[in-house]
Amino acid sequence: MSQESASTKEEAQLCWGFPAVLKAVALVAVWVFALWLAGCSARPQRATGDLGIVIERAGGSALIIETTGRTVVTQVEGLGDLSHASAVYSRDERYAYVFGRDGGLTKLDLLNGDVSNRVLQSGNSIGGAISQDGRLVAVSNYEPGGVRVFDAETLALVADIPAIYGTGEQRSKVVGLVDAPGQRFVFSLFDAGEIWVADLSDPSQPSIQRYTDIGVQPYDALITPDGRYYIAGLFGEDGLALLDLWHPAQGVRRILDGYGRGEEPLPVYKMPHLEGWALAGNLAFLPAVGRHEVLVVDTDGWQEVARVPVQGQPVFAMARPDGRQVWVNFALPDNDTVQVIDSESQRVVRTLKPGKGVLHMEFTPRGEAVWVSVRDLDRVEVYDTATFERLATLQASKPSGIFLTDRAGRIGL
Amino acid sequence: MSQESASTKEEAQLCWGFPAVLKAVALVAVWVFALWLAGCSARPQRATGDLGIVIERAGGSALIIETTGRTVVTQVEGLGDLSHASAVYSRDERYAYVFGRDGGLTKLDLLNGDVSNRVLQSGNSIGGAISQDGRLVAVSNYEPGGVRVFDAETLALVADIPAIYGTGEQRSKVVGLVDAPGQRFVFSLFDAGEIWVADLSDPSQPSIQRYTDIGVQPYDALITPDGRYYIAGLFGEDGLALLDLWHPAQGVRRILDGYGRGEEPLPVYKMPHLEGWALAGNLAFLPAVGRHEVLVVDTDGWQEVARVPVQGQPVFAMARPDGRQVWVNFALPDNDTVQVIDSESQRVVRTLKPGKGVLHMEFTPRGEAVWVSVRDLDRVEVYDTATFERLATLQASKPSGIFLTDRAGRIGL
Repeated sequence: MSQESASTKEEAQLCWGFPAVLKAVALVAVWVFALWLAGCSARPQRATGDLGIVIERAGGSALIIETTGRTVVTQVEGLGDLSHASAVYSRDERYAYVFGRDGGLTKLDLLNGDVSNRVLQSGNSIGGAISQDGRLVAVSNYEPGGVRVFDAETLALVADIPAIYGTGEQRSKVVGLVDAPGQRFVFSLFDAGEIWVADLSDPSQPSIQRYTDIGVQPYDALITPDGRYYIAGLFGEDGLALLDLWHPAQGVRRILDGYGRGEEPLPVYKMPHLEGWALAGNLAFLPAVGRHEVLVVDTDGWQEVARVPVQGQPVFAMARPDGRQVWVNFALPDNDTVQVIDSESQRVVRTLKPGKGVLHMEFTPRGEAVWVSVRDLDRVEVYDTATFERLATLQASKPSGIFLTDRAGRIGL
Repeated sequence: MSQESASTKEEAQLCWGFPAVLKAVALVAVWVFALWLAGCSARPQRATGDLGIVIERAGGSALIIETTGRTVVTQVEGLGDLSHASAVYSRDERYAYVFGRDGGLTKLDLLNGDVSNRVLQSGNSIGGAISQDGRLVAVSNYEPGGVRVFDAETLALVADIPAIYGTGEQRSKVVGLVDAPGQRFVFSLFDAGEIWVADLSDPSQPSIQRYTDIGVQPYDALITPDGRYYIAGLFGEDGLALLDLWHPAQGVRRILDGYGRGEEPLPVYKMPHLEGWALAGNLAFLPAVGRHEVLVVDTDGWQEVARVPVQGQPVFAMARPDGRQVWVNFALPDNDTVQVIDSESQRVVRTLKPGKGVLHMEFTPRGEAVWVSVRDLDRVEVYDTATFERLATLQASKPSGIFLTDRAGRIGL
């Protein structure tokens, strides 16, 4: 209505006594206004603090979601092979860097809802990290084994760190890559049984500290939220390797040595993830490899203080941001279940059955809700962590990892 | 250049054989394009994860800043009396809620760079908090004494909690207001010597738990980053009051009782702030009232384990996010100085002299830099926390509080 009257007014002013063709041109001007108005309003201002992505592993796509209204903003395709994919965020929380299994590093623009850049940086990669200052993105590779570091802005290669060990001909698969304060990246060499600390304060000349003989087959690692302790899980033996980054000269020491000793280990259906480990107060909650237990460790002396019996082989044990609850999911045949441990009583207080294929869980920054991906039902469920009530259900195609933008401000995520 | 050729092309198409006046109108159309292009590009997409505000107390204005390029984005005026102002953020990190001394609650739009809403909600207020789910903003008031809760979207009054005590005629000043998990707000009554916990799970019916006789004149308070322990400093006596929110039935207990006993207390030039307290591992670093000391407290038993001698009366003692350093500023006559304590050796490792009137410090989310407001020099200084090198200097008019958007995702900030 206002559109019409506007154009009429326009004609009256411009076209007084002019030929009809002139009116037409004047109308063009009016529609130009209208078109550009539409063009501008089509992309309103949007903040990024409540955004996140959900990896859709089957289709090589990701959903951009928002946690305030609990809705899907849009879907972005063309991310390659996203089996076992993970992501980190730019310091302004605009871009997600998605690490694909095919060696693809994809820079996802959360505001434009598209792929702003993508490089195939190796044949087979397993995850990555972003430097403390947000300027460097590191990727850990299986093939060729090593770490490559890229400019977060352009994705140009900044440094290449081949994981060469032993006689110098072999390259090891790299796992458990995390960022640490002081522009450092810490990672483990699966085949070599080593932990490396790379300082990229000068990106053109990474200084690398190597720790050898740390144990057989480190398969994943974590770093405490303060960035002080790096802990690698060992698949080849019964314990974990710990490095105190405040005292690197003290070297790597063994903790929880033989936590399964003397007992018949179960076959391992799925390796647990340590990155999503849980720290509640002074207590760490770690998924035990192959056992139906979550280990409780006192971080003061790194001694085991308790074990919490759970329904199956734990995969992720994740603490609610306030540390009061630890949410656990499981390997087959129990991957339809989530159990909630009260960190104080160290007992399971709730068992949920979201459905087959619970692959990942992510808490909102202040912990009032948790997002759970249920692959086989093509759903993401959002739960209230106080009432355990289901707050929302979102459709997603074979969802796996869920990553919210507040990770941008956290150490080691 | 491209502009000219574009218009030439336009003329060629539209004006073949038309009178000159027609050419003019065609040109109008071209300039319409150009104008709208400018209009759109004038406000590009902008993420909010690396934004923040600097309070300019004298002029009732605030600077919107960004920590990636370390620049001022814009200045926003009309925020009223900002002496002793603080701020919290909306869960999407788009809006800052600024609490002014004049009772003004201003909703600042970081993307549009303007005031999107403002209410004068009391005669004299002292700070505020935002609920865990981001839907409620609470303000603590001196006059009339109490807490008022507003809808974060509209700033409509949702709940009014008068701080009535004793015989029922008096109202107490309210201090130390923080958010806690479970839609709770916790605050202290200065005149009454009480701590109240308000649960706003049902905003229309706040349920309030009162703790009386907690000590004389609670002047400020803090909550641990996990939202478990609420600690109020006492001005009227020698100790602090602690409430374990995981065990509210246990009531409030006294800690650090008589930490200054038997020594001649110094005159207090400026009350220390507890909100910016420092927690490093299991150790809390607290500014001692009136003493040239920072108290080191073991949070396991809440016992004093050490005192760090510092240059003056500490105002803020703030931990770098990794907990390795504690930065301290001071009351007059030492308010030109900042000292850095190594949390492990518990010694001052660096003394900086940013200049007269160091009022506040804020770390970037992962701690690589710290922003320091220097009121009397009208400057904000940014330091590298690893090298102590000055990274940037920004002009600001009488800067005081600095608040970065990552506070949106933190408990109790």
